[in-house]
Amino acid sequence: MGRVMLTETVFRDAHQSLLATRMRTRDMLPIAEQMDQVGFFSLEVWGGATFDSCIRYLNEDPWERLRALKKAMPNTPMQMLLRGQNLVGYRHYADDLVDRFVKRAAENGVDIFRIFDAVNDIRNMERSIKAAKKMDKHVQAGISYTISPVHSNEQFAQFAVQLAELGCDSICIKDMGGLITPKNAYDLIRAIKKEVNLPVNLHTHCTSGMAQMSYFHGCQAGVDILDTAMSPLSGGSSQPATESLVAALKGTPYDTGLDLELLTEIKRYFERIMEIYAPVFNAIASRVDTNVLVYQIPGGMLSNLVSQLNEQKAMDKYEEVLAEVPKVRKDLGYPPLVTPTSQIVTTQAVLNVVTGDRYKMVPKEVKDYVKGLYGKSPAMIDPKVRIKVLCDEDAVTVRPADLLPPEYEEAKKAVDALGLAKKEEDYLTYALYPQVALKFLKGAATEESLVKKDMASDLGASLKA
Amino acid sequence: MGRVMLTETVFRDAHQSLLATRMRTRDMLPIAEQMDQVGFFSLEVWGGATFDSCIRYLNEDPWERLRALKKAMPNTPMQMLLRGQNLVGYRHYADDLVDRFVKRAAENGVDIFRIFDAVNDIRNMERSIKAAKKMDKHVQAGISYTISPVHSNEQFAQFAVQLAELGCDSICIKDMGGLITPKNAYDLIRAIKKEVNLPVNLHTHCTSGMAQMSYFHGCQAGVDILDTAMSPLSGGSSQPATESLVAALKGTPYDTGLDLELLTEIKRYFERIMEIYAPVFNAIASRVDTNVLVYQIPGGMLSNLVSQLNEQKAMDKYEEVLAEVPKVRKDLGYPPLVTPTSQIVTTQAVLNVVTGDRYKMVPKEVKDYVKGLYGKSPAMIDPKVRIKVLCDEDAVTVRPADLLPPEYEEAKKAVDALGLAKKEEDYLTYALYPQVALKFLKGAATEESLVKKDMASDLGASLKA
Ligand SMILES: [Co+2]
Ligand SMILES: [Co+2]
Repeated sequence: MGRVMLTETVFRDAHQSLLATRMRTRDMLPIAEQMDQVGFFSLEVWGGATFDSCIRYLNEDPWERLRALKKAMPNTPMQMLLRGQNLVGYRHYADDLVDRFVKRAAENGVDIFRIFDAVNDIRNMERSIKAAKKMDKHVQAGISYTISPVHSNEQFAQFAVQLAELGCDSICIKDMGGLITPKNAYDLIRAIKKEVNLPVNLHTHCTSGMAQMSYFHGCQAGVDILDTAMSPLSGGSSQPATESLVAALKGTPYDTGLDLELLTEIKRYFERIMEIYAPVFNAIASRVDTNVLVYQIPGGMLSNLVSQLNEQKAMDKYEEVLAEVPKVRKDLGYPPLVTPTSQIVTTQAVLNVVTGDRYKMVPKEVKDYVKGLYGKSPAMIDPKVRIKVLCDEDAVTVRPADLLPPEYEEAKKAVDALGLAKKEEDYLTYALYPQVALKFLKGAATEESLVKKDMASDLGASLKA
Repeated sequence: MGRVMLTETVFRDAHQSLLATRMRTRDMLPIAEQMDQVGFFSLEVWGGATFDSCIRYLNEDPWERLRALKKAMPNTPMQMLLRGQNLVGYRHYADDLVDRFVKRAAENGVDIFRIFDAVNDIRNMERSIKAAKKMDKHVQAGISYTISPVHSNEQFAQFAVQLAELGCDSICIKDMGGLITPKNAYDLIRAIKKEVNLPVNLHTHCTSGMAQMSYFHGCQAGVDILDTAMSPLSGGSSQPATESLVAALKGTPYDTGLDLELLTEIKRYFERIMEIYAPVFNAIASRVDTNVLVYQIPGGMLSNLVSQLNEQKAMDKYEEVLAEVPKVRKDLGYPPLVTPTSQIVTTQAVLNVVTGDRYKMVPKEVKDYVKGLYGKSPAMIDPKVRIKVLCDEDAVTVRPADLLPPEYEEAKKAVDALGLAKKEEDYLTYALYPQVALKFLKGAATEESLVKKDMASDLGASLKA
């Protein structure tokens, strides 16, 4: 149990959680040199919702962002969050796309790939893990943390063993909902450390107000890396503050060794950034939301729920839907609630309540999930629900991506027909987000202005881990 | 090391820290019945800046508030914060006033008196401690926590021994600045527990983002009571969230045993309260401020500084003043920075920088402090500064209140001459705050409306512990 290292999330998870993923590259670069001097284990700068956000809202090329940040911070490993076979999108992509995407990400600057799957189906992670290892990159395998009758520390630890066997370099406990208690963090870290000889990273969010305690007790369990965010972008649905952790651990066996004065200088920069981004700052997401502790529904998801119910003029059904969410989650075999399962569960819960007839209306995503197209659910799907949703269709038991034909050449052809590609990455961008990418590659996208708008509909974004 | 109990601060410190002490009694009473069911060790409801705020801004009788809250929450001990010989004001009062004030506070409902002194001079605490013990009340002695070359855990523990000898029932580590690290909290609790056999309470603020960690490690050291605030009024310069602590400690040896579902119901009420009080909500104070870790200047004090410098159009001197504050604090013998020493140190630092001649201009409060009228400073005051400030005047070595003639009869006479008293408490209110009380007792005070205003000047209030 020695020194603890920090992964700084301000360029990815922190602004995804608090600023609807809207931070521009031009607002990252001026502080890059100083950030590079701190001595972070890594800087999380790419993946998650940032790819989508770049082309959809910012008229920025995500690949250029990656290159620019890499160039500006040559001394600190650049880290990205990769949703396994979903890459940085919301559906499974074919293996050829996975291979090419990971290769290009590595070539453009990603040093550490944090790879996870929403339902912890290792088959959805294997291809991208192998692709990253082929590029000689550090693979940090993420375990989507959740609490349910079918999840246990022993099971998570066994999952870590499988991930280690695949050649992963470190393990991340990915608690996107901020559910992990200090005791659970301690026990789980110990359980994993008992089984695998790899560095363990603890990633959580302050949503429920337990994160700092879980980090501290995590240190006592021997955690190697913690995810934190510079204080102006910390707290609430973001991570604990970097400076606070550095100060709190000073002079203990877990001392990060980082320079608090340098961090304080950097912090002033981000205070100004917060002023600039005030219009997109989600004040609700910035506060402790202990609903997650009672309903086990992450804060952002609750707000998303409110927005869905408002659209359907069914806010009077709020409490009913709250009660329905855990039931749907149970029916679906207790998936961890993270992109895309959080959206799948919530949408179905709303439909069940609003129609008054459970599973009468079932959106395509839920059907696909039940069919097994998102992978194997943690527990068996309720047989009655399965029949109601699939009728006489068979469920799928193979690796979902085995059913997908190659996609890259088709995408390339489509882009070439329009003469839009300037570089290989453009084909990938198109393959991931055809509609949005088309507009972007044509040069028809515009940068969203930083004006106040209704943030409720964006709150879902904070869950897109 | 068994169960941990919670003192809920939402009716005192939390709204003093985040809402400029503006919460009305009528907004407390609707939730009182449920609060009374939770099973808190105590509810902090009175004292600190609330007395002043009631008569100055809210046109409320603080004594009536106390009675109303006591009546509405008969099952939970009512707690107040008493500034020793300063009572709920900003100067030393004569002993006769201390005796009467404490007696009437007890008779009107205070069950637990948390009594502290800014410079930890026990002579400033003795009289009020004895007065409260005479009323058979629980006295929780506060140790004003600070960090300096002359403060140590051993010394704090010896102070606790002296307080125990006075008959105090419990000890509070009062960290008004949010300075305490997890390690320091642990070590200090152990040091105190080694010397005295009394329950220990840890009180801190989230200002620096270390509070939750310090609470957690405090539990491991055997702390008995922690101060928390219902989540909508938690965080930033307030306390850690009550629900988060309850959830985080569940199933551990420190389990609070409190009902998270009941707390979640109560929390919804305070969410509405925060909407009502949005105009006075101090958004800056609600965020983590790690400046305190580098400058050891509490967050609220920094903002107070900015406001003082703005008034004097000297904002360009900000960095210089920041550097001067620790020097003045050193000159003055390292007082803990809490009301009124925080104001004393800051004001002098500003004057030193703005005049360009250290201690050329010295306000009365600083002179009184150097003279010994606030008690004995933790370290000796710098002899050169003492001479410069006092010239040939002698410093005082007796207990400061020994120099004060009785005050009560005079105050009574003044109020009677105007025919303003309806009850004995009115004389006390007048004796503490003659000017403000006069207006209030005359019925000429009006309730401030809840409209947005410049909060900077009120930030100092958040330091009035
Ligand atoms: Co996250
Ligand atoms: Co306080």
